[in-house]
Amino acid sequence: MSEVKKVVLAYSGGLDTSVILKWLQDVYQCEVVTFTADIGQGEELEPARAKATAAGIKEIYIDDLREEFARDFIFPMFRANTIYEGEYLLGTSIARPLIAKRLIEIANETGADTISHGATGKGNDQVRFELGAYALRPDIKIIAPWREWDLNSRQKLLDYAEKHGISVEMKKGKTSPYSMDANSLHISYEGRILENPWTEPEEDMWRWTVSPENAPDQATYVELSYQNGDIVAIDDVPHTPHQVMEKLNQVAGANGVGRLDIVENRYVGMKSRGCYETPAGTVMMKAHRAIESLTLDREVAHLKDELMPRYASLIYNGYWWSPERAMLQTMIDTSQANVNGKVRVKLYKGNVIVVGRASDNSLFDENIATFEEDGGAYNQKDAEGFIKLNALRMRIAAKKGR
Amino acid sequence: MSEVKKVVLAYSGGLDTSVILKWLQDVYQCEVVTFTADIGQGEELEPARAKATAAGIKEIYIDDLREEFARDFIFPMFRANTIYEGEYLLGTSIARPLIAKRLIEIANETGADTISHGATGKGNDQVRFELGAYALRPDIKIIAPWREWDLNSRQKLLDYAEKHGISVEMKKGKTSPYSMDANSLHISYEGRILENPWTEPEEDMWRWTVSPENAPDQATYVELSYQNGDIVAIDDVPHTPHQVMEKLNQVAGANGVGRLDIVENRYVGMKSRGCYETPAGTVMMKAHRAIESLTLDREVAHLKDELMPRYASLIYNGYWWSPERAMLQTMIDTSQANVNGKVRVKLYKGNVIVVGRASDNSLFDENIATFEEDGGAYNQKDAEGFIKLNALRMRIAAKKGR
Amino acid sequence: MSEVKKVVLAYSGGLDTSVILKWLQDVYQCEVVTFTADIGQGEELEPARAKATAAGIKEIYIDDLREEFARDFIFPMFRANTIYEGEYLLGTSIARPLIAKRLIEIANETGADTISHGATGKGNDQVRFELGAYALRPDIKIIAPWREWDLNSRQKLLDYAEKHGISVEMKKGKTSPYSMDANSLHISYEGRILENPWTEPEEDMWRWTVSPENAPDQATYVELSYQNGDIVAIDDVPHTPHQVMEKLNQVAGANGVGRLDIVENRYVGMKSRGCYETPAGTVMMKAHRAIESLTLDREVAHLKDELMPRYASLIYNGYWWSPERAMLQTMIDTSQANVNGKVRVKLYKGNVIVVGRASDNSLFDENIATFEEDGGAYNQKDAEGFIKLNALRMRIAAKKGR
Amino acid sequence: MSEVKKVVLAYSGGLDTSVILKWLQDVYQCEVVTFTADIGQGEELEPARAKATAAGIKEIYIDDLREEFARDFIFPMFRANTIYEGEYLLGTSIARPLIAKRLIEIANETGADTISHGATGKGNDQVRFELGAYALRPDIKIIAPWREWDLNSRQKLLDYAEKHGISVEMKKGKTSPYSMDANSLHISYEGRILENPWTEPEEDMWRWTVSPENAPDQATYVELSYQNGDIVAIDDVPHTPHQVMEKLNQVAGANGVGRLDIVENRYVGMKSRGCYETPAGTVMMKAHRAIESLTLDREVAHLKDELMPRYASLIYNGYWWSPERAMLQTMIDTSQANVNGKVRVKLYKGNVIVVGRASDNSLFDENIATFEEDGGAYNQKDAEGFIKLNALRMRIAAKKGR
Repeated sequence: MSEVKKVVLAYSGGLDTSVILKWLQDVYQCEVVTFTADIGQGEELEPARAKATAAGIKEIYIDDLREEFARDFIFPMFRANTIYEGEYLLGTSIARPLIAKRLIEIANETGADTISHGATGKGNDQVRFELGAYALRPDIKIIAPWREWDLNSRQKLLDYAEKHGISVEMKKGKTSPYSMDANSLHISYEGRILENPWTEPEEDMWRWTVSPENAPDQATYVELSYQNGDIVAIDDVPHTPHQVMEKLNQVAGANGVGRLDIVENRYVGMKSRGCYETPAGTVMMKAHRAIESLTLDREVAHLKDELMPRYASLIYNGYWWSPERAMLQTMIDTSQANVNGKVRVKLYKGNVIVVGRASDNSLFDENIATFEEDGGAYNQKDAEGFIKLNALRMRIAAKKGR
Repeated sequence: MSEVKKVVLAYSGGLDTSVILKWLQDVYQCEVVTFTADIGQGEELEPARAKATAAGIKEIYIDDLREEFARDFIFPMFRANTIYEGEYLLGTSIARPLIAKRLIEIANETGADTISHGATGKGNDQVRFELGAYALRPDIKIIAPWREWDLNSRQKLLDYAEKHGISVEMKKGKTSPYSMDANSLHISYEGRILENPWTEPEEDMWRWTVSPENAPDQATYVELSYQNGDIVAIDDVPHTPHQVMEKLNQVAGANGVGRLDIVENRYVGMKSRGCYETPAGTVMMKAHRAIESLTLDREVAHLKDELMPRYASLIYNGYWWSPERAMLQTMIDTSQANVNGKVRVKLYKGNVIVVGRASDNSLFDENIATFEEDGGAYNQKDAEGFIKLNALRMRIAAKKGR
Repeated sequence: MSEVKKVVLAYSGGLDTSVILKWLQDVYQCEVVTFTADIGQGEELEPARAKATAAGIKEIYIDDLREEFARDFIFPMFRANTIYEGEYLLGTSIARPLIAKRLIEIANETGADTISHGATGKGNDQVRFELGAYALRPDIKIIAPWREWDLNSRQKLLDYAEKHGISVEMKKGKTSPYSMDANSLHISYEGRILENPWTEPEEDMWRWTVSPENAPDQATYVELSYQNGDIVAIDDVPHTPHQVMEKLNQVAGANGVGRLDIVENRYVGMKSRGCYETPAGTVMMKAHRAIESLTLDREVAHLKDELMPRYASLIYNGYWWSPERAMLQTMIDTSQANVNGKVRVKLYKGNVIVVGRASDNSLFDENIATFEEDGGAYNQKDAEGFIKLNALRMRIAAKKGR
Repeated sequence: MSEVKKVVLAYSGGLDTSVILKWLQDVYQCEVVTFTADIGQGEELEPARAKATAAGIKEIYIDDLREEFARDFIFPMFRANTIYEGEYLLGTSIARPLIAKRLIEIANETGADTISHGATGKGNDQVRFELGAYALRPDIKIIAPWREWDLNSRQKLLDYAEKHGISVEMKKGKTSPYSMDANSLHISYEGRILENPWTEPEEDMWRWTVSPENAPDQATYVELSYQNGDIVAIDDVPHTPHQVMEKLNQVAGANGVGRLDIVENRYVGMKSRGCYETPAGTVMMKAHRAIESLTLDREVAHLKDELMPRYASLIYNGYWWSPERAMLQTMIDTSQANVNGKVRVKLYKGNVIVVGRASDNSLFDENIATFEEDGGAYNQKDAEGFIKLNALRMRIAAKKGR
């Protein structure tokens, strides 16, 4: 211990990271740089600056990373129709590599030898932060206080805060009893009554979506324009990636779209119950598949589908900065060259319904697919040979008595 | 041609297969056996018997295959969370291998050398019927009239029917302009205005589901009991597989659950637009994932997810009776040994929301997953080594300048 | 028939394609362009020109494609360690897409509407030629005489040749009773006594390799230099791709390296017995894995290994020009950025033994891997946490009685 | 520490485990049970008994596990044609789960709460031992001295041995400078000059094989009989699984077969150089593929090939006792139902050459595969439709300008 000179702390200004800040100063006797990022979590960042200053911090980084987050992390992930264990849209997972990258950049800029974060020793986030950090700077030192200290309950934290004069007035509206995480893609909820997987979450837990019951009786229609697999306009109005997230979160959330309640398998080996709100993401998943359905070759689409679970696991497990994720991304991005066009989506009380897709790059050919006469575009007799040769190995086997 | 002695025809009694029946008699001068199956399509079968008799058929098979269909085809498929191209629940695909099997059984019983079906030369169904038939009886002859004759439009069919005195009074209520297929798992719609993928289907196309808009304002809760991955009871009342389908179709359809509108890639190489109603299936998919989330090992679940797209393609493409499907099924079924317990589902205006899962075989361990002190069930310090060794290869690479 | 105006024929000048040439002229009354390629098969091409001229052909293409073949087809394939069904190095398969491409290019240049080839209706090559041609020019017409005519035996061919005054003097040395195919990567042998898979091939069948028994008693050592996964020098002498093939074929063949005798599964649904000589390829496969073993990240290597069988099947089945092959290739090529360095190989009586590998991009770190003290490069205590967390899911399952 | 009551030690009687025995007694003050297994390593076990007795051990287990090892571990693995990173036959990996299982069984029998092993903290074996142990008994305690103590060099070990009166006379013939591991499937060599991957191993390192140069000038032919994918007879003489290993090791080793020299990726994140002798395994791999080539369906074979790398990694990484390995094994074993018949193999100076295969379950059909007239067994015209429909998606794409 204590060979630490300067540490960059991922700092939110909340109770946990405020205690960590003090604890680092005390225990490691080191200089602390705070880093607070706006990744769309919807909170004021200036209070964090004030608190850091009050704690004697000289180097305070407060960054608006929302466009980078959407452009370089969320959007590439959605090109793969990424979904973990059939349900989870990876809202927390996808934000961590960006934080890891920024922590290392700031460490490099400030001459720090160490980074620190407030993730617990039981969760996935520690892995995501640290794998990213090690991949980007192999000699970095990492302090994960939750794995080291003995402040392993809320009460001990509060006692420590009081003892060291750390302000504990809670952020307005954040009196949630749940462990939460928020960014442009989602809010997550864990802990408390959710620890019983038979219990339905209380309605007032949810923050970004109305319930389907409380959503408008009138559906909302949205038109999404795609270019190379990314949404570039909504209702024909150009949007930057982050604007896409904002707009879709608003409109989908207002229509009760995007709630999820699952039990998932953590990388550290345990199952956990989590609830998620991902309004924009839920729309994007449906709509991206729709534009691909028109523009992707069948075998390309199937190959993507077969590799997706692995790609999703890589992101979930914290391997964004690994060479295998990069390799898969190259392949995924290549596949999106013709994923252009429009998708029309109807949002109604929790439902996302694709009601139209169109593309200049469409591979859908009405003349061939039609039930009516097709003027010779397709020779039905070809099907016989197709079937006969595909059946051949099974016929031989059957003849041999299998 | 005309070496055909006796042919078993998959016969619905509708216009198409009635014309085929007559055409087979005329062109091939062969005896025809009709086979009409109840696979839950919700139509009277006795009219088919009357028509077949009127057409001079002596061997008429009318079989209730609903329990077999649910037990041996639908249920095994849902054990794999099977979904084609991220959307389609394979309602048509999964019925075809059963029909193929029964056609061959009847051919064997009646001494027929040939089977015949009414599937067109552009679709997947011809492949599914014929691959199945060849796999089960390699020397079978197959007549696919749509690939042979020149009756390639509705008008020509009607003319032929009139000329040959074939009754064309349409079945009551089936004046749909769409090409439809129905069974216990779904109804499908193709053709007409659907051939433009930008067009939203008309509300009156749908048959089994109310629209979310017209669904009740009060949610319905259902409890599903699983054994070895299959639903065995609903709200604690034991149900046979087919009863499960019936009950869930009814309750889900009444709540606006199960509509789908997609562009899909056919095995024969073209894209096509289809709409589907799969009320029970939509619930089953969600609920099965939920019970697995509690009871399956993580790596087993992930392996299933990675193999699922291939398994889905095998079924979609007509390879149910192939050795590779059988091999995958063995693996899937093995994985379900502990998939027991209960899932509570809320159905509301098109939404299927899992609100609880419980199992005596649960691998969810509240003591380990808790955010509170866990009494030593998990040593947070282990995470450091876990991360360090997982990061090692990336750190070495980074040190070498990658 | 007979809407054919001008056809480009893949023409070797041998009996089969000479008969086809005449047959095309007769039956289709069309102009014929001949295309003869040097892809390293080791035969004089000028006799083909003379014969074509004698047959009245005005447009005669004779192309040296050896460098293109090695650079754009063989080398990319070897980057993936491609092997079909665990054994076959795809010597025939990889040449076909180049021929298909050139046929279409020539058709475009000469205003031809049709191509023709001499592949039989039972084999893979027809598929490879035609899938390639259709992918590159969707409206191309294709004549595959073996699927059309009734000259379905050697004797009928000879009779036809005699009747039409086609010279049948056999090419010197090609009196082999086997069906053969040769190019820079390999020679293949099929037919005759090989049709019994229990029969050992006769020693005098093989053309490019001595038997291990007849190989020198002294081993030959070769050093191969790699850049981006490709061999660029042998024993420090720069070689072009085709020169690599020539040199390695010579030195490996002289040491009895590269024979293979297998039963394989054809795309058209049957099994067939084939013997292959692939001297250079056999060395390249071993050596490429060796240079990758030093320079590739583990997970990148494993992902390549898992996708390789599919990539191999794509090539075997004729999908070189498909979008999914292109997508996989992008990924494979990306992985080769650091596959640089040297491999030292010992060739001895049929054996290819890697005896050394070195690379400036090596990820092998002697300091970490050593059995001796490593000066803190690796903390053995990390292993405990690594194991504990990897075991956690299994421990929980065991505690629950699984 | 020191809550250990009784520990079962995997004990060879060599220097390392003798020191560990003493160290456990000293440091943990606990009772030690020794377990020494014959898994075909070719060493006398009685000296281990004598040494254990001399060290005061009361419960000494010496088990002949050779048949179990071959039957329940080696043979099932070879059914999958298992190979790690394209080269390694997993000789060490496959023995560890058996040792782990036996350690736990003995712990259960003797009332021990702990196991201990002599694997280092840098290698794969610690992972394999411990994952297995935890999976089979989740509350087991594990002592891995190499991760705990400071005896981290050979000299320190020797000093400790001398100080505590531990006999250090080396086993006869085992003065090898390499770190070695041996069992019925292989010997491995690591360390010393092998730590430089450019260095060729010295000839006198190898123990079980002669060099190709020193192998007989006359080839040896062997006939292997398969039942359900396993070898059951050699040259028509029935052999038990272990007898198969013994016989093939002898005959293949005598012909210079089975040497391997590679750089591999360890699960703990580093690359390492290893040399291996696997005479029997090298023959078995080739021959098993040969019998499968005749008897397996194509798609079954391809699916096995695609899953094999993952299955190999599971074994390499120590997950033999995991549910996902069990699930894959079910699938693999199912596939072997018809893998019956004979393979004839020629062994000559390092080469394993398959020269014949025959099976009553063969799917090879000479009538269909023949180049001669086949009497209508296969209709070549079917190929046209087969190709046309397979090409359709690419033709549509090309028409749309892709």
